[in-house]
Amino acid sequence: MKRIALSVSVLLSVTFVPAVVADEGMWQPHQLQGLRQQLEERGLEIHPEKLADLTAHPMNAVINLGGCTASFVSPEGLAVTNHHCAYRVLQYNSTEENNLLRDGFLAREKSQEIFAGPGSRILVTVAVDDVTAAVRKGLGGMSPRERYDAIEKRRKELIAECESDPGHRCRVAAFHGSLQYYLIKALEIRDVRIVYAPAGSVGRYGGDVDNWMWPRHTGDFTFYRAYVGADGKPADHSDDNVPFRPEHYLKVSDAGLEPGDYVMVTGYPGRTNRHRLAAEVENEFGWRYPRRQALMQAMMDLIGEVTEGHPDDAIKYAGTVAGLSNTVKNYSGMLDGFAKSDILERKRRVEEQLVKWTAGMGQSDPLASLREVVAEAQAVRERDLYSPFVRRAALLGSAGTLYRLSHEKEKPDAEREPGYQERDWRRIKERLTRLDRTFSPRVDRALLRWAILEYAAISAGQHVAALDEWFGLRGNAVDESALDALLGEMYAKTQLGDQAKRLAWLEATPKKFEESDDPFIQLAVKLYPGDREREAEQEERLGRLQELQPLYMKAMIAFLDSRGESVYPDANSTLRVSYGTVQGYSPRDALTYTPFTTLAGILEKDTGEDPFDSPPELLTAIRERRFGRYADPSLDSVPVNFLADLDITGGNSGSPTLNARGELIGLVFDGNYEAMASDWVFMPEITRSIHVDIRAVLWFMDAVDEADHLLTEMGVTPAV
Amino acid sequence: MKRIALSVSVLLSVTFVPAVVADEGMWQPHQLQGLRQQLEERGLEIHPEKLADLTAHPMNAVINLGGCTASFVSPEGLAVTNHHCAYRVLQYNSTEENNLLRDGFLAREKSQEIFAGPGSRILVTVAVDDVTAAVRKGLGGMSPRERYDAIEKRRKELIAECESDPGHRCRVAAFHGSLQYYLIKALEIRDVRIVYAPAGSVGRYGGDVDNWMWPRHTGDFTFYRAYVGADGKPADHSDDNVPFRPEHYLKVSDAGLEPGDYVMVTGYPGRTNRHRLAAEVENEFGWRYPRRQALMQAMMDLIGEVTEGHPDDAIKYAGTVAGLSNTVKNYSGMLDGFAKSDILERKRRVEEQLVKWTAGMGQSDPLASLREVVAEAQAVRERDLYSPFVRRAALLGSAGTLYRLSHEKEKPDAEREPGYQERDWRRIKERLTRLDRTFSPRVDRALLRWAILEYAAISAGQHVAALDEWFGLRGNAVDESALDALLGEMYAKTQLGDQAKRLAWLEATPKKFEESDDPFIQLAVKLYPGDREREAEQEERLGRLQELQPLYMKAMIAFLDSRGESVYPDANSTLRVSYGTVQGYSPRDALTYTPFTTLAGILEKDTGEDPFDSPPELLTAIRERRFGRYADPSLDSVPVNFLADLDITGGNSGSPTLNARGELIGLVFDGNYEAMASDWVFMPEITRSIHVDIRAVLWFMDAVDEADHLLTEMGVTPAV
Repeated sequence: MKRIALSVSVLLSVTFVPAVVADEGMWQPHQLQGLRQQLEERGLEIHPEKLADLTAHPMNAVINLGGCTASFVSPEGLAVTNHHCAYRVLQYNSTEENNLLRDGFLAREKSQEIFAGPGSRILVTVAVDDVTAAVRKGLGGMSPRERYDAIEKRRKELIAECESDPGHRCRVAAFHGSLQYYLIKALEIRDVRIVYAPAGSVGRYGGDVDNWMWPRHTGDFTFYRAYVGADGKPADHSDDNVPFRPEHYLKVSDAGLEPGDYVMVTGYPGRTNRHRLAAEVENEFGWRYPRRQALMQAMMDLIGEVTEGHPDDAIKYAGTVAGLSNTVKNYSGMLDGFAKSDILERKRRVEEQLVKWTAGMGQSDPLASLREVVAEAQAVRERDLYSPFVRRAALLGSAGTLYRLSHEKEKPDAEREPGYQERDWRRIKERLTRLDRTFSPRVDRALLRWAILEYAAISAGQHVAALDEWFGLRGNAVDESALDALLGEMYAKTQLGDQAKRLAWLEATPKKFEESDDPFIQLAVKLYPGDREREAEQEERLGRLQELQPLYMKAMIAFLDSRGESVYPDANSTLRVSYGTVQGYSPRDALTYTPFTTLAGILEKDTGEDPFDSPPELLTAIRERRFGRYADPSLDSVPVNFLADLDITGGNSGSPTLNARGELIGLVFDGNYEAMASDWVFMPEITRSIHVDIRAVLWFMDAVDEADHLLTEMGVTPAV
Repeated sequence: MKRIALSVSVLLSVTFVPAVVADEGMWQPHQLQGLRQQLEERGLEIHPEKLADLTAHPMNAVINLGGCTASFVSPEGLAVTNHHCAYRVLQYNSTEENNLLRDGFLAREKSQEIFAGPGSRILVTVAVDDVTAAVRKGLGGMSPRERYDAIEKRRKELIAECESDPGHRCRVAAFHGSLQYYLIKALEIRDVRIVYAPAGSVGRYGGDVDNWMWPRHTGDFTFYRAYVGADGKPADHSDDNVPFRPEHYLKVSDAGLEPGDYVMVTGYPGRTNRHRLAAEVENEFGWRYPRRQALMQAMMDLIGEVTEGHPDDAIKYAGTVAGLSNTVKNYSGMLDGFAKSDILERKRRVEEQLVKWTAGMGQSDPLASLREVVAEAQAVRERDLYSPFVRRAALLGSAGTLYRLSHEKEKPDAEREPGYQERDWRRIKERLTRLDRTFSPRVDRALLRWAILEYAAISAGQHVAALDEWFGLRGNAVDESALDALLGEMYAKTQLGDQAKRLAWLEATPKKFEESDDPFIQLAVKLYPGDREREAEQEERLGRLQELQPLYMKAMIAFLDSRGESVYPDANSTLRVSYGTVQGYSPRDALTYTPFTTLAGILEKDTGEDPFDSPPELLTAIRERRFGRYADPSLDSVPVNFLADLDITGGNSGSPTLNARGELIGLVFDGNYEAMASDWVFMPEITRSIHVDIRAVLWFMDAVDEADHLLTEMGVTPAV
């Protein structure tokens, strides 16, 4: 939906109350032409058509890191993203002595750039084609199972054909709940290198304390470089590779930015749920989020306890803990935001109106059957939430992946489950290789034990038979000493902790697994049949949804169109454009957040202790006011972070923020606490995105880290 | 000093940065004519001369409660002040069953109004006369001791003459450190009654959590009524008394108020230290405040422990704890504010400039001798800080007062120490009577024991011989079991806990005290000679200051006058006028406090638990938006509290806030956390006063407590 709502006042301190407008929507680039009037009202200076061409500037410079976004900023494949997007890569390449996370890193020349590691990818979208007709033809008469299988088969075929072009990765993405399908083709660059990361005390300034918070002062940026073979084509990492020369890269603007200025974000937002039913919203906020939050907090506490006094283990699990901490805080904010919002009432009202409207048109109720399927899924919600936590233990998870792969390999590639096709094998191998850096048997065992106890406590009727049998559970009863003995034996006996032996299973047949005496392999084998049954159940349900959701969305789109409202699809990790303006907000009565923070705020916050321990040279540069031309005269300092009212979600992290002329003015890196429920509901008065101002990035590079050669490469003249 | 400084921006969210001006100064009413231009620039609509006439409207309506301010708001002596100014009175009149503090109180007719208790006073200033010449004549050739005695004698004579007019209380107040003296004559009304107090969850909303904080939502108001004899003259409490009919009372304005509007506060600010020397500032913030804070926190913790499970004792000490808590938070804020300010450097710079300027005029250094006296006082700072905490124990304090009184009574009245003259006897008696309500032997003993241990630990060289001897201290060594035995015996044996016996000592001669076997009386007798010695030391020092301070202030006034700056005297509990405008501020980077809170903010804050437990009927009225005409259209709600940039301090609590026409628009009740050091330094960017908006007071009265008859009495038509 495209909704432009007048917000409540955010500026009570001035006698006039300006009407603040916030812009909901993560738009498909081709939709922007239809929004031309709004875009121009906000201040866009280039033609929206320019944004629809994915092969041209600026869209072609926007790249996908898988879960994050980045953008090319030089003709030699230099790319900028968020520090937190590079967190795991920096962690993977850190040791106690050479700690990239803590100390940062700067390659003074290309030969010093560090290979990010197996699995790091840069994806450059090169084509997006509507394949709805091909995917959906003749689905009408099919059973749910047939429908699901047919759609999967057609998607795989389209992908396989697309990926026959070497060096590319393709996907068929569903829009509006399988109403539309697009084939997305991307160049897949496999040799990604770390060029420059600021110290952790800059890149993660404020840490978990400031995460999701405003006012914010985080230098959340890191630079990568894309490398390809000497022929210019994607290649595995090699010293012979050369920097990738993108057709287009973003021009950096240090011309400045003011409250109310037009801004847009182009990137790969992961997932939103703006079109879910009221019943789903109720289940998520009333049951699932609170439970998941409690489980993740408990996991985090447990890791903290178990790694206490084991610095090696603590480093291995730092990324996991950071992720959990982020999620727990996210859930808190979502639940707080939900409690204060009227989203449920509004959903119910819109659904009622929709049903009434369709009835008025003589059509059948588009919601009745959909609601039944939702209720069915909720009947097994305990099982579906708790049992996956058992599989999160690394050795059991790896065993499950390996055994499943052995089965999938027996099928023709096109029939294999997504994620297990030949195109996925390298990633699976990379994941299993990387495991050593993020895994400790002590911690893994403690996590598995905890997950079993949590799982044992759910309604006995939702238990998984094979799990109960293996761990000797009877209903909710657990013999803890027997469990400890069993776990002791399993971790003593397994050889999956050994990288070479683990990777060897990649080539094994199902039979070899079934004959193995490795306890984790044995358990994976026992879990397999039940897992497939539940998967089939779920796919059957998906098949029904693939019929019902398009009906619902089609009706909803028509209904909203009748009210003059455009509809954007829920986010699905495809390239989108969000637009809006630089805007503060009022989080509480008599309190206003203004939209720019400055270096002065770092002096206010800094305590010298993590997470407010700026590098001394940074503090000195601020105190000495060595701002160069990066300072904003009206702020009398260098802007660090800013707020905008445009619409983002996870996956947008690292996305370039562009000005009205399409120039790079920042990187989006967070949303605000008050709007954490924004994946479900966009609230114009308080939903804000948090950006690092490019002037801060340039200033850090120039005044603190002396990355003059990178500034020059980006076309910026060092100034401090 | 009158300084008008441009502040840093407090409104970064708007593209223009308005120049915010804040007004330092608590001015003597007669000084306002000289500030006419500034006052009119801020928006004053009445002639400043009107504010200089203490017998006319509006100044005549502003009354002194002793430590707080109030104002008459009806022709029948109805007066409004802060709830926190009435705290001890409400506590004194509360029992477990009839808890005025918790439940509030509303007299539906005059006969239900509750006598506030002995000691409650309303003072109406009727004349202020310059008596400098009379006090200071011929002091030149005197020794410090002679000078001190002469000044005291002359002050007493002036007071005695003034108080020969029955029903009046007079004082001679020193301005600019004894450069000037004014005789202040006030009508003293002794029959003060409680008319209306809102529930504690309104009057203290936010409690200690919100104390000193913004945004604030406290309904900090209470109504008293002044009663006099049938002849219209002040009289002791009696059922035959009639409401006092003030010559003038304030007109309530519910016309509204906007950011930037002119506001002024008229009241009795207690004490500021804006003209202290750098050496004194350094001692206060570097040593004395941190020590006092620690001692008061410890006292508070101890009272908490000792009263746990003793609700009667807890009620008795609630007022003491509230006072301590307030002070501890105040000190924290002052120390934080001081740490961030450059006050010390600025003081040093101004002192240097002053010395240079006077040297340039061929005059001697006005600071050299003054600095010597300051250093002398600091040499006994441990003794002077710690030993008074021993005397804070109620029985020892009472014994000391009584014994001293017996000595003072032997002198002619005019020679008696201030506080022990005939005019003071009634107050002493009232204090000793009231003691029962705020004293428990268990708690008192614990406090005395703690204070002795704290005192024992100071430098042995600063110990008080008589204290050491009585409690068996040797240097810093304490035999705790002997101490406990002694205290046990003292509290078992003393009869001072008995009100009648305690009051009987009011008539005793020194000889009777010296023969007493009451241990607290005995200890007071032993402490007396040393106390007098130290008092004489101090008075001798004061005599020197009475010569040196006027020289310093005279030089400083001349110096600042040479720079075109006016000088207001430090606050001294005399009637002053502060002026400024309604203004928010920016406490931190990217954060702006707007100047009005609203009822909507109460819904945001309310948790249902103390201190955020608004009465249910209040929450309902807000939810139902029963705002009447009290709502501000631009806020879309009723304003609750507001900020102004005018200059206040303790003693101003309860002061009326007036608009440009001199109408009542609020009551000032607090300062903000960031500016707690403002008794020492006024910082225009962040020093703010917090006011309860009169529209909130009227709304609470009208929509929540149905005090329609009081509204009518105030000339307001009930509207909800």
